[in-house]
Amino acid sequence: MGEGMGEFELIARYFTRPVRRAALGVGDDCALLLPAAGMQLAVSSDMLVAGRHFFADVAPHRLGHKALAVNLSDLAACGARPLAFTLALALPRIDEPWLEGFARGLLALADAHGCELVGGDTTQGPLNICITVFGEVPAGQALLRSNARPGDDIYVSGNLGDARLALLALQGQLALPAERLERARQRLEQPAPRLALGQALRGIASSAVDISDGLLGDLGHILQASGVGARIDTRSTMGLIAESAYETCATCAGSPLDPELIQQCTLAGGDDYELAFTAAPALRAAVAAAAQASATPVTRIGLVQARPGLRLVDAQGQPVRQRYASFDHFASPASAPS
Amino acid sequence: MGEGMGEFELIARYFTRPVRRAALGVGDDCALLLPAAGMQLAVSSDMLVAGRHFFADVAPHRLGHKALAVNLSDLAACGARPLAFTLALALPRIDEPWLEGFARGLLALADAHGCELVGGDTTQGPLNICITVFGEVPAGQALLRSNARPGDDIYVSGNLGDARLALLALQGQLALPAERLERARQRLEQPAPRLALGQALRGIASSAVDISDGLLGDLGHILQASGVGARIDTRSTMGLIAESAYETCATCAGSPLDPELIQQCTLAGGDDYELAFTAAPALRAAVAAAAQASATPVTRIGLVQARPGLRLVDAQGQPVRQRYASFDHFASPASAPS
Repeated sequence: MGEGMGEFELIARYFTRPVRRAALGVGDDCALLLPAAGMQLAVSSDMLVAGRHFFADVAPHRLGHKALAVNLSDLAACGARPLAFTLALALPRIDEPWLEGFARGLLALADAHGCELVGGDTTQGPLNICITVFGEVPAGQALLRSNARPGDDIYVSGNLGDARLALLALQGQLALPAERLERARQRLEQPAPRLALGQALRGIASSAVDISDGLLGDLGHILQASGVGARIDTRSTMGLIAESAYETCATCAGSPLDPELIQQCTLAGGDDYELAFTAAPALRAAVAAAAQASATPVTRIGLVQARPGLRLVDAQGQPVRQRYASFDHFASPASAPS
Repeated sequence: MGEGMGEFELIARYFTRPVRRAALGVGDDCALLLPAAGMQLAVSSDMLVAGRHFFADVAPHRLGHKALAVNLSDLAACGARPLAFTLALALPRIDEPWLEGFARGLLALADAHGCELVGGDTTQGPLNICITVFGEVPAGQALLRSNARPGDDIYVSGNLGDARLALLALQGQLALPAERLERARQRLEQPAPRLALGQALRGIASSAVDISDGLLGDLGHILQASGVGARIDTRSTMGLIAESAYETCATCAGSPLDPELIQQCTLAGGDDYELAFTAAPALRAAVAAAAQASATPVTRIGLVQARPGLRLVDAQGQPVRQRYASFDHFASPASAPS
């Protein structure tokens, strides 16, 4: 199978569907998009590399899901509504079952969010997936990183740390019961972008970022872009790990629950694809309403301060000295062995 | 150098410049674009893989140029004006001289066409360059592949075949004097996208495509999308090769000039990044004016016909039986050894 299938047939078979919202889709030199009047186009690109962002043997439908999810998460962080995406794919060889699974996972998530595949490229090469996603947001209403103000509350959506726990388990550094591993692994391999929350936070959040490299690192981007600092309450961040993690660690041989590991996973685990955002204290009820409207739990974890830097404090308000390194695609260990 | 440079510093040092036209550029979760009223956004993605689309040791400034040029060529084929692009880059390691050269070549071409780098991604991995480019075109005026009509003339811009000659020489399959090699190599490594011609052809050309995989293959996309056929005059396509090719082949040991090689290079060489387009015979003067206004030579090479298929005819109007295989990123040899 696939021996005689060329690039164009491959595109036609797996990735071409009737055009819906775009003016012109897959199959011409360019795709054509016509944003509605008064709308800005939000654009983001992410590249996923085998052995760096995913295990080479990950289930292809999960990889298809994740490749789009990490891009949709950037739209969520801007408060944008998904419109369309392009897919550039380098494959070592044409593997039809793999392509079928990849396309299925990719297009299922795309359909769930009304995000249309409008173009792209395929080539032979080491496995590499590059998606560029387009969303629309009313002009001037995009959530940016640069508008956090001293006194603003700091929030995080959902749970953090499961993806890193799954990674540690898959790397053999942690023992997880099968059911718990599967739950954490879904967070690692099939993250759910927080699109509804992002759109609900327009006009409420003063800044937002999605958590791909770890809470502290990504929150740091907000602080840097806004020229502010922050105090984070580690009591509240301890609570961000999913309950499954506690059950999990209770079963770890000899160690009932290592708080340091939990903090490492929640504060700097990475691959969470939750949103971190800030909002004025006067808008606490509005934040709660946005969370409820989008069926997304949010947790208040700290305070924006004028003094630059990120300060962790414990239950007694004392500084936490431990440093939590963020994920960097060049400087630190990958989210998969490379 | 570069040992301690992480992803974010890398982006800041080499790829971040003040935002001009985009509402928001590099450094947030998304870039924001606001197309002018009545404009459609034309979008195209191309992925370049080391060993497949370029020699791993190509001069980095030339690679930077080419990576953007092949994308701009897609905008040219749509008649779109460049606005912005995103860059996703996988690098085996941080090599500062390489990055400096790559960014220099990339941004020089971007500046020449007013195309702004607005976002992207960098990661560690086998060298891979994925650019997504955005242009604008008045709604409804984009040049498509699907509107060629029987009776239309078929045209090609500039010269074809030099890039393939250079490739053959660099692969040691052809002997070229240094000066000739350099001229052909520039066509291979630093193609000039035909943006001015593409925009000048709006309202004149009935269809257009850029020639990346070879004239016959890419013209075939127009014929298929338009449900038509074509007759190509091989006398005229012989004339498409740059003069340097004749000088070149005159020096080839033992073989003064191989017409079959010339035809192979012009008809199916690939990597030309010229435009092939169709226009009604009544518009020949308008095509000539567009060519002159954009300072781009064009050559009329054939005729669109109702009968499907692509027919080559010689000086006597007799069918040419030779088959010229087009470039396919999976089915045939790469433009560089892989």
